[in-house]
Amino acid sequence: MSELLKIGITHGDINGIGYEILLKTFSDIRLTEFFTPIIYGSAKSASYHRKVLNYKPINFYTITKAEDYNDGKLNLINCIKDEIKIDLGSPSPDAGEAAYMALDRASQDLKNGLIDALVTLPIHKDTIQNDHFSFPGHTEFLQERFGKGKKALMMMVCNNLRVALVTAHIPVRDVPDTISKELILERIRTLQTSLVRDFNLENPRIAVLGLNPHAGENGLLGKEEMDVIIPAVAEAQKQTILCAGPFPSDGFFGSGRFKEFDAILAMYHDQGLIPFKTLAMEAGVNYTAGLDIVRTSPDHGTAYDIAGKGIASDESFHQAIYLALDVIRNRSAYDEAHANPLRKMFFDRSKDDEKLDLTKEEQED
Amino acid sequence: MSELLKIGITHGDINGIGYEILLKTFSDIRLTEFFTPIIYGSAKSASYHRKVLNYKPINFYTITKAEDYNDGKLNLINCIKDEIKIDLGSPSPDAGEAAYMALDRASQDLKNGLIDALVTLPIHKDTIQNDHFSFPGHTEFLQERFGKGKKALMMMVCNNLRVALVTAHIPVRDVPDTISKELILERIRTLQTSLVRDFNLENPRIAVLGLNPHAGENGLLGKEEMDVIIPAVAEAQKQTILCAGPFPSDGFFGSGRFKEFDAILAMYHDQGLIPFKTLAMEAGVNYTAGLDIVRTSPDHGTAYDIAGKGIASDESFHQAIYLALDVIRNRSAYDEAHANPLRKMFFDRSKDDEKLDLTKEEQED
Repeated sequence: MSELLKIGITHGDINGIGYEILLKTFSDIRLTEFFTPIIYGSAKSASYHRKVLNYKPINFYTITKAEDYNDGKLNLINCIKDEIKIDLGSPSPDAGEAAYMALDRASQDLKNGLIDALVTLPIHKDTIQNDHFSFPGHTEFLQERFGKGKKALMMMVCNNLRVALVTAHIPVRDVPDTISKELILERIRTLQTSLVRDFNLENPRIAVLGLNPHAGENGLLGKEEMDVIIPAVAEAQKQTILCAGPFPSDGFFGSGRFKEFDAILAMYHDQGLIPFKTLAMEAGVNYTAGLDIVRTSPDHGTAYDIAGKGIASDESFHQAIYLALDVIRNRSAYDEAHANPLRKMFFDRSKDDEKLDLTKEEQED
Repeated sequence: MSELLKIGITHGDINGIGYEILLKTFSDIRLTEFFTPIIYGSAKSASYHRKVLNYKPINFYTITKAEDYNDGKLNLINCIKDEIKIDLGSPSPDAGEAAYMALDRASQDLKNGLIDALVTLPIHKDTIQNDHFSFPGHTEFLQERFGKGKKALMMMVCNNLRVALVTAHIPVRDVPDTISKELILERIRTLQTSLVRDFNLENPRIAVLGLNPHAGENGLLGKEEMDVIIPAVAEAQKQTILCAGPFPSDGFFGSGRFKEFDAILAMYHDQGLIPFKTLAMEAGVNYTAGLDIVRTSPDHGTAYDIAGKGIASDESFHQAIYLALDVIRNRSAYDEAHANPLRKMFFDRSKDDEKLDLTKEEQED
């Protein structure tokens, strides 16, 4: 592939650490040798943050539409009005609107194939809400835009540690009634497909966590394991997916058993994200599996408490870009290999056990 | 203190790794120089495990009642019938009964002050259930026996990492309606008292976790933070307890922020135990705070899957004994210091601003 992949990057919440991370990352312009960034944001906001942080100027290449991108440049599409107010470290309606404008524009370009993947910087889930965006997060928004009826699967990735969620941004109160056998099975299937196609794993092993303490202790501490999780795992196994569980989640991580699996399916947000973030620290990536598009993001939030201080780590954002590139390449390699499969070539040995009868004379026609 | 502290140890489930851990630990008899162990178990079971594991013989000093203990010996009280059957790696009614017999006997001795603390080896929470024991675990059983109306607080300890639970062995489904403002406040108070008296921390800082993803994101992902957790934290602060929160639990551990606190209060079992076990690995201890008695235990279960294999770690059990000893000593030092406090001695300086009037002549009587 000689042509560089185009990665669309949305600026997220302008009051948070998004621009600091952008500026840190692209202070090394050599990154554009590996891919072509197209930033959906605002040059003025970037400039504001640069001054606050006292960083050296960076040359943005401002374009009005994605088609005008240039390889080797830090392409930027202005998505918001210029007179926007930045309130460092606080939520604001302006920042919410700015986050939405960028996301909306980038999503359209993604839909039209003008960018190959989307990397999103963190939004404030409260202020971004509007008539077009009433979702708890990016994952749900993208599912609505790109799902075509399929469900997006939230997945956290750090090297070989991959944690996917059956439920994500819903109250704990709603979790027990949301995790049906069908939903768990669907998640297992989506996860398996993603591990094969997006992560290039041939026979991925999946661990499924229990919902309750001690995975329910045979019904003593909750029935969901017996009622929905165990049946879902059994059904998945029947469909020849290599999966096991439900495991009691505390011991599963404490014992290091999680290392035996290619991915872990957690029942709810914190069950998956607590161990993930504890283990992955600053290098974790949020990946949206199950959709036709490729989207990743760093695994942290707007981090208002450290906004403008210059101490935010851009490690997770780097990893998010690398993962996006990996997934695009894995997918196209997989699709290529499966587009025109060779016909099966083998000798039919089904009659190997027939003995040649030398007593018979050859028949001549 | 010249006299050694007496630590009662219950054997737990005879089909699990309890005896392996006991045998490993006390293969070094020098431990008895630091405390006097009184094991509530069975000599025959110990012997069975020793043979299976091919360990060298250990001299138990069998006594019929705790009063007959000997310092420097591995005292053992036979609590169960001799013809008991051991099914390595499986739950069995016999093992459940044996676990209960030992726990019951040890609890009586603890009540009567014959032992200074109780260290319990893991039970199978299913098979131990009987007419006298219908609890999800040791903590709840001990609360019933020793609570005098006070609630036991389950707390996990590993060096400076201390995690306490608002709810412990209940289904996730029941958590949201169980965590009332009153309960959380009670837990905070119990935790604070324990940190001061049991752990010798002068002004302990307590972090309180949220229940929902992102600590509810201002009500978007759940109301419990606003309805009960925030009011409880505010009330505790009003009572001059140094506590903060609610924190989103995934980021709290991922960012390392937890290191700024002396203890963390989690809303439910897995929320506290997943990060604890992930961080503490094999050195964690379960401590029952809030009761007059001292009880600790290793933080693992019966581990049937590795029973009889000789690969169980006895590290957590060691730590459980050390913590029990520490707590007994911290408590008695605290109680001693507060039993007969010195009267406050100070000069009354409330009239420091009065000036001596040198114009007045001294009056002579």
